[in-house]
Amino acid sequence: MFNNFVYQNPVKILFGKGQIAQLSKQIPADAKILLTYGGGSIFQNGVYEQVKTALEGRNIVEFGGIEANPTYETLMQAVELGRKEGITFLLAVGGGSVLDGTKFIAAAIPFEGEDAWQIVTGKEKYKTAIPLGAVLTLPATGSEMNYYAVISKKSTHEKKGMGGPLVYPKFSILDPETTYSLPPRQIANGIADAFTHVMEQYMTYPVDAQIQDRFAESVIQTLIEVAPKTLENPTDYEARANFMWAATVALNGWIGLGVPQDWATHQIGHEITAFHGVDHARTLAVVLPHLLQYKKADKRAKLIQYAKRVWNLSGTDDELVAGAIQKTGEFYESLGLPIKASEYGVNKETIEKIKQRFVERGMNFGEKADITPEVVAEILEMSIA
Amino acid sequence: MFNNFVYQNPVKILFGKGQIAQLSKQIPADAKILLTYGGGSIFQNGVYEQVKTALEGRNIVEFGGIEANPTYETLMQAVELGRKEGITFLLAVGGGSVLDGTKFIAAAIPFEGEDAWQIVTGKEKYKTAIPLGAVLTLPATGSEMNYYAVISKKSTHEKKGMGGPLVYPKFSILDPETTYSLPPRQIANGIADAFTHVMEQYMTYPVDAQIQDRFAESVIQTLIEVAPKTLENPTDYEARANFMWAATVALNGWIGLGVPQDWATHQIGHEITAFHGVDHARTLAVVLPHLLQYKKADKRAKLIQYAKRVWNLSGTDDELVAGAIQKTGEFYESLGLPIKASEYGVNKETIEKIKQRFVERGMNFGEKADITPEVVAEILEMSIA
Repeated sequence: MFNNFVYQNPVKILFGKGQIAQLSKQIPADAKILLTYGGGSIFQNGVYEQVKTALEGRNIVEFGGIEANPTYETLMQAVELGRKEGITFLLAVGGGSVLDGTKFIAAAIPFEGEDAWQIVTGKEKYKTAIPLGAVLTLPATGSEMNYYAVISKKSTHEKKGMGGPLVYPKFSILDPETTYSLPPRQIANGIADAFTHVMEQYMTYPVDAQIQDRFAESVIQTLIEVAPKTLENPTDYEARANFMWAATVALNGWIGLGVPQDWATHQIGHEITAFHGVDHARTLAVVLPHLLQYKKADKRAKLIQYAKRVWNLSGTDDELVAGAIQKTGEFYESLGLPIKASEYGVNKETIEKIKQRFVERGMNFGEKADITPEVVAEILEMSIA
Repeated sequence: MFNNFVYQNPVKILFGKGQIAQLSKQIPADAKILLTYGGGSIFQNGVYEQVKTALEGRNIVEFGGIEANPTYETLMQAVELGRKEGITFLLAVGGGSVLDGTKFIAAAIPFEGEDAWQIVTGKEKYKTAIPLGAVLTLPATGSEMNYYAVISKKSTHEKKGMGGPLVYPKFSILDPETTYSLPPRQIANGIADAFTHVMEQYMTYPVDAQIQDRFAESVIQTLIEVAPKTLENPTDYEARANFMWAATVALNGWIGLGVPQDWATHQIGHEITAFHGVDHARTLAVVLPHLLQYKKADKRAKLIQYAKRVWNLSGTDDELVAGAIQKTGEFYESLGLPIKASEYGVNKETIEKIKQRFVERGMNFGEKADITPEVVAEILEMSIA
């Protein structure tokens, strides 16, 4: 079985040293630009200066303060500003949260419905979007080369995915040097995030998709190889560049064509962030190893393949399965990410709330849609045991 | 060193069984379509019927007879027809030659210069092109997901590459079942062609591009694994599908981002085709093993990497280099492709003519631009020894 697929990804990538200087050519000359950013690190690391220099003489309005796990509440302020100023192009400068938030802004500015949150729930369709581009400063989410965004709503503790071809960035600029000043914690999170993106698309069951499987293994192997290097030496350009490109291809569609995908780890993780404010990547580290343990019978063939091809393990099939799960947990731990949700204060009470949230959603998750609310609770209980 | 790169590839891929039925939605409703094809195999394998059924009621003109190594002379007939009929969309149905030829037609129809051959030589720029789409029936060249084309001129025995973003297909439909009836020789040629495309981008010198290298190794490994399966059992869908997708990603840009590229094997091979009419892929098989032997000092690091990672060889570095070259030759031979140019009647006289052709071009080839006309002759002499 080799599944049918449809693929198209129009994002232009400008990768490498000094590419921010190409910015002006990527944005229409008459554009009224809204430059969006996060907590202000772009003022410390020189990226803001580079962007302003590249766009000298252009018509730019700025909106800062997009937070990690960008919220509907904050983003709607940008939407109002964008409408008021007649913005025609959005330039996201920052990490995945700024990019994700800017995708929402792009769809929400021209949205004519009453409640723009329905763009996120999917209950209302948006039919157009303001074009956007990005200068990525934090490799992690892959948002720079896909059309997904995850948006949170503070008032209801919700965190949901949205997307669609209208919010593909027109271009993304990736200069590894802009990431040199990032705190090690963010790099570690980014590696864990990219690693988990691959696992969500790879660690399911085999469908004879050899290119996709080999590519997925390639990305994981690269992340494993560069992780210690780039954490120890942030200005090792080659290590940082390989990490940055690995994080992009982990979620730009290439490895996921026609293959079953899981994504239950992300769904569960989102709820941990919603209730405990834990960094996104850190929630993945506390879910995936236990999810693999719980689902090891269903994922057996792929766990064995992964043990051999990624971790070069040998032994009986049972040993390979156990080894694959252990190596996965150890990899997160090597990055400084605990694999126990209890470390973040998740307890039986939270688990009950999260379970209830899944009951309300009324659907199951995972590649076989068998991650029920009860299973979610069991996995989380393993994670606080 | 990790080189800067710019990447954008807008081609939409529809892959798998029955995807030809999606054709109508991919082409504007009011299009006047020129359907281009080759020697007529599409009438035997059912593809013509599928295409016509999918496009029932649409305005279609047909142009058949595009030959392997498509010629300027033939293609200009299609250009005249297209101009006369006011064609607004081109649909290439066939293999790489039909696709390549159709890219030329797309650029030539609106071309206002006096001599459309100058599009191929690059001496005149084309500023617009008729949009094109493709139904691929022969995996090999990768033309379905890139903007390259190779066009021959009968009158002067020339064979040259052209390309550019204007001639990207808008879409390509790849249904592995359409390839079931292909003669084994064409499948063998296709595997050799795709394999060589990867080698041209991979077998140079290391630049720390880990994702690109792992992806290249992934494609080669997949081709090695599926080659005997798909040759023995043409209707093994999974093997054919993996081969088909491998051939596309071998030359759609993904593995070549920011890496040095060789392409001397192709340049030399083109001349062998031009003078002796040898199948394109077969010319590659008689050049690459000898080129690797000649350039083994320069390519040493990559040959060792390839020996270990692709062929799982072990031994001293010298043994790995020798083993890598031997395995490459044996792979072509396993497909039924000889690695001696003498098998096709290439002799000292032809070599002198080819050398002269390279002298006239006035440039060197290869990743270090050190494949001079003299080196070309030496490589070819190894191939007839």
